[in-house]
Amino acid sequence: MDYSAILHEIRERLAPVIGQGRVASYIPELATVSPQHFGMAVVCIDGTVHSIGDADVPFSIQSISKLFTLVMALQCEGDALWQRIGREPSGNPFNSLVQLEHEHGKPRNPFINAGALVLSDILCTRYAVPETAVVEFLRKLAGHENIHYDRRVAKSERDTAHRNAAMAYFMKSFGNLKNPVGQVLDAYCRHCAIEMSCIDLARAVTFLANHGVLPRSGERLLTASAAKRLNALMLTCGTYDAAGDFAFRVGLPAKSGVGGGILALVPGECGVCVWSPGLEPSGNSLAGSLALETFTTLTGRSIF
Amino acid sequence: MDYSAILHEIRERLAPVIGQGRVASYIPELATVSPQHFGMAVVCIDGTVHSIGDADVPFSIQSISKLFTLVMALQCEGDALWQRIGREPSGNPFNSLVQLEHEHGKPRNPFINAGALVLSDILCTRYAVPETAVVEFLRKLAGHENIHYDRRVAKSERDTAHRNAAMAYFMKSFGNLKNPVGQVLDAYCRHCAIEMSCIDLARAVTFLANHGVLPRSGERLLTASAAKRLNALMLTCGTYDAAGDFAFRVGLPAKSGVGGGILALVPGECGVCVWSPGLEPSGNSLAGSLALETFTTLTGRSIF
Amino acid sequence: MDYSAILHEIRERLAPVIGQGRVASYIPELATVSPQHFGMAVVCIDGTVHSIGDADVPFSIQSISKLFTLVMALQCEGDALWQRIGREPSGNPFNSLVQLEHEHGKPRNPFINAGALVLSDILCTRYAVPETAVVEFLRKLAGHENIHYDRRVAKSERDTAHRNAAMAYFMKSFGNLKNPVGQVLDAYCRHCAIEMSCIDLARAVTFLANHGVLPRSGERLLTASAAKRLNALMLTCGTYDAAGDFAFRVGLPAKSGVGGGILALVPGECGVCVWSPGLEPSGNSLAGSLALETFTTLTGRSIF
Amino acid sequence: MDYSAILHEIRERLAPVIGQGRVASYIPELATVSPQHFGMAVVCIDGTVHSIGDADVPFSIQSISKLFTLVMALQCEGDALWQRIGREPSGNPFNSLVQLEHEHGKPRNPFINAGALVLSDILCTRYAVPETAVVEFLRKLAGHENIHYDRRVAKSERDTAHRNAAMAYFMKSFGNLKNPVGQVLDAYCRHCAIEMSCIDLARAVTFLANHGVLPRSGERLLTASAAKRLNALMLTCGTYDAAGDFAFRVGLPAKSGVGGGILALVPGECGVCVWSPGLEPSGNSLAGSLALETFTTLTGRSIF
Repeated sequence: MDYSAILHEIRERLAPVIGQGRVASYIPELATVSPQHFGMAVVCIDGTVHSIGDADVPFSIQSISKLFTLVMALQCEGDALWQRIGREPSGNPFNSLVQLEHEHGKPRNPFINAGALVLSDILCTRYAVPETAVVEFLRKLAGHENIHYDRRVAKSERDTAHRNAAMAYFMKSFGNLKNPVGQVLDAYCRHCAIEMSCIDLARAVTFLANHGVLPRSGERLLTASAAKRLNALMLTCGTYDAAGDFAFRVGLPAKSGVGGGILALVPGECGVCVWSPGLEPSGNSLAGSLALETFTTLTGRSIF
Repeated sequence: MDYSAILHEIRERLAPVIGQGRVASYIPELATVSPQHFGMAVVCIDGTVHSIGDADVPFSIQSISKLFTLVMALQCEGDALWQRIGREPSGNPFNSLVQLEHEHGKPRNPFINAGALVLSDILCTRYAVPETAVVEFLRKLAGHENIHYDRRVAKSERDTAHRNAAMAYFMKSFGNLKNPVGQVLDAYCRHCAIEMSCIDLARAVTFLANHGVLPRSGERLLTASAAKRLNALMLTCGTYDAAGDFAFRVGLPAKSGVGGGILALVPGECGVCVWSPGLEPSGNSLAGSLALETFTTLTGRSIF
Repeated sequence: MDYSAILHEIRERLAPVIGQGRVASYIPELATVSPQHFGMAVVCIDGTVHSIGDADVPFSIQSISKLFTLVMALQCEGDALWQRIGREPSGNPFNSLVQLEHEHGKPRNPFINAGALVLSDILCTRYAVPETAVVEFLRKLAGHENIHYDRRVAKSERDTAHRNAAMAYFMKSFGNLKNPVGQVLDAYCRHCAIEMSCIDLARAVTFLANHGVLPRSGERLLTASAAKRLNALMLTCGTYDAAGDFAFRVGLPAKSGVGGGILALVPGECGVCVWSPGLEPSGNSLAGSLALETFTTLTGRSIF
Repeated sequence: MDYSAILHEIRERLAPVIGQGRVASYIPELATVSPQHFGMAVVCIDGTVHSIGDADVPFSIQSISKLFTLVMALQCEGDALWQRIGREPSGNPFNSLVQLEHEHGKPRNPFINAGALVLSDILCTRYAVPETAVVEFLRKLAGHENIHYDRRVAKSERDTAHRNAAMAYFMKSFGNLKNPVGQVLDAYCRHCAIEMSCIDLARAVTFLANHGVLPRSGERLLTASAAKRLNALMLTCGTYDAAGDFAFRVGLPAKSGVGGGILALVPGECGVCVWSPGLEPSGNSLAGSLALETFTTLTGRSIF
């Protein structure tokens, strides 16, 4: 498959929509990112890298971090994790408290904010400095040391995290949060503030395309079964309240973030990451969604 | 792949759980079905049939009919269909009115009852006798003439269809039902009352595994893209409120019914159908879900 | 208390707002009523009548009928009625299905549509022609024979009653409706279509101001305790989702209808009825609400 | 009216139910209160005191404090208060977050926890030490200096206030809380931890029975209209999700607390307070509710 040609074709087709959508504006650090950015990268299991545009520009990974904190939490807890977090699509906007109330403080899935707060709580229990552990894990996955979280972004997130604080206290009222809420929120906001490029992220996800084994080293990070199940979870829950539509149009496991990144993968083959900051109302990158839809159309690489 | 050996292995492993779960009891015709039934069939695109147990015993397909009325409604309406029905998992028990109210009478997806009522409404507009059209379509897909709906089941369904009537009138109040409610309910209840065996159903779904083309005749029923998208929809919405968990554990597109059948498919390869009347609380066959989970474990044929 | 002077003062103060608000438009018979109508009547327990404006013009009483069908249903069932209908404010717009689902088909109170459908169901069980029984009861209360329901209004209501049909079927699915849904809806729509004037209605409610005894004849229709409790119910639930605000501003038991009428009472003293077809968003008469607020301000006759 | 005889009659009738119900158990200080307590007091506008049982034993006033913080907040803000808090019954259990979400962070009324948090926020803005201001206000109303809050109760409340913290952060996310959440929660928990006896409370509420004027001094605390409106609010919202039923059975404005107190008033006449720690599932005192129902039956002093 000539991925380089395909990436060029995608950029050409997408040109008219780049810059459309609304850049996330709830903190100044995100609001001032130019909506004109567009980058995309494919990293194959054999290590080959194909990229276009701003694929090497670091951006705020935001909710894409939930995928990696989930992997780490699974390494800590195994299947016991699923007693504290569900595996069903939320069927509601991504930060709703309603469902949390109906289900007695158990978040519907690990990719909504409430679920990721439980993930951060698990990492707070396991690691003295959880954000450092997450950054180091991502450095290993991406294969280089130059990955950090942006302290100003983390602070802005933390200062405006009232709704996440509400969810955290609400879960604590049901006994589903073990550490002090402030500590969990600190960790959570730092995880969201990590910066990586499309190439970094596409490489970091190749172990999930490779049945749980890190391609370069051969190290097994998850069982084949756990990797397969994570992919299923990304497909059904990875793109906020648009997961059904995304599966319908794109047909690949994916996780998106309000920084404009969407990280996807083709099982057995490659990781794919696209970045464009303009968002659809659902919170997913507008150009990014269309780019991935075009990717599956051109490659025939839907899982269906 | 030696599917016959795999089916034997599955039955052996499943033996202890067959008969567990609760048989649907809201109408006498379903309540009196023995929970000891177990049948499973694999029909490959090349026509090969593998089966075990009660795979040739007709049972009430119930909500599995929604998959086929969706195909027919798509043939009538094309993508305009999606203006009347959404494509998102419901995140709620399968017959909830709440979500319908929040979304102004547009059902979340075609596989919940409200969505399937809209499908039946479309067929009522297109066909003078919609249940006959559906039965004939299924005869073509299954390759033989001996498929019918059970009039007593249809009548019992209709006599107790108060909640479906409520949903139908509710959607009518939003203008999302074109035909008289009574007529739509008649058609809907007859679609649910169709009887087919595991072998029939596994064969009937092979065109979806074959990118929209009926294997025997080469007739194209849906575009490849539409077939792929239908598979995505089955994965995210096909098994009531347990779709996330089902994707996580089984990893195949599937549609279940309260008669105890679950119809799944392996893209590019085969249709798979299992039947066992004991249900989990979610409304899916208990032994059937485990059988399909074992199937993907033994074959490695998850899409992920 | 010089009620005639007070009514004049009210009309003078209200003149600028008469005609404001939106006339109910879901059926043509209501949509074409002039928003300029304004009538108000006070009928004291001793029989004295004070009135102004269009106080003798019959209008469609709509939901005000719920007060009288409740009295009749209480006469049939006594306190057993409260096993089928609650007594709590709904906290939701007046025709919501959500709450009905949460509470397993038991309406929150008898003054929301769902509750009044149960009232009509009770009258369908008790009377061969329930609308005739209701009309005759109102003739007795109002003291003259010239009270009817408008057949065209009833038919228009019935033709557009999809949402009420949805609620009725929904309650039937929970076993909280005994008669055929169509029959209950026929009765319900005819009760709503009864026409009475402000003077009629104010006189009809005097027995509730008089502790359950019909002033002219001395006939006891309800126990003193039941009458008191009905007044409490009107205060907490009588004016749709604005009951709290209405109690706050007006402080009198009242029941409103989308025809623009509001019927209130001063315990121990009189019935008060106002009519002006322009509605607030809550469904209550805009000028009518202000007229009653002015009435309690000028008379000091709040119950608080 | 011979209130002393009536109180004796009430205690006699209630004897069999005293001790029934469940004492609040979420903090040890409340859990260890004996369910056998029963006290009741009537304080007339002219200063006459009638009491029985434990009427002079101080207990934790809990949510009854909301009535007095509302009066103080109204003194600060006037009608502008109603832009931040609604006046409608909640129609949901008393600490639900759902409704808060539907209404964009504006609590339904000042007597649910969310509403009272906004009241505490207003007092935090106005007073350096709001709990001292509230205690001083209550000392003035009750006419003696021996009123305090219990520091251990306040601390226990604060340590377990996760759900209130969730609501506070949630409202802050909508901009409806001005002070730091921790500070508001400190104040709120201290208001709830104030201890007063039935006699104290019945006397403290006499100004609301007296149209806003403190009987002893003649000082006007609220306008007559504001006092009337507060009474209406107590009636429609003062007893959690049982307000409709309470109005139906008792027919007096009242505010209850989970410490087992219920404070009511007869407009123009007296304040009435009852205390018995065993609660109904709705959170209101079981014996207390029945005592007040008996009070209105024996005195005929319902407002209806």
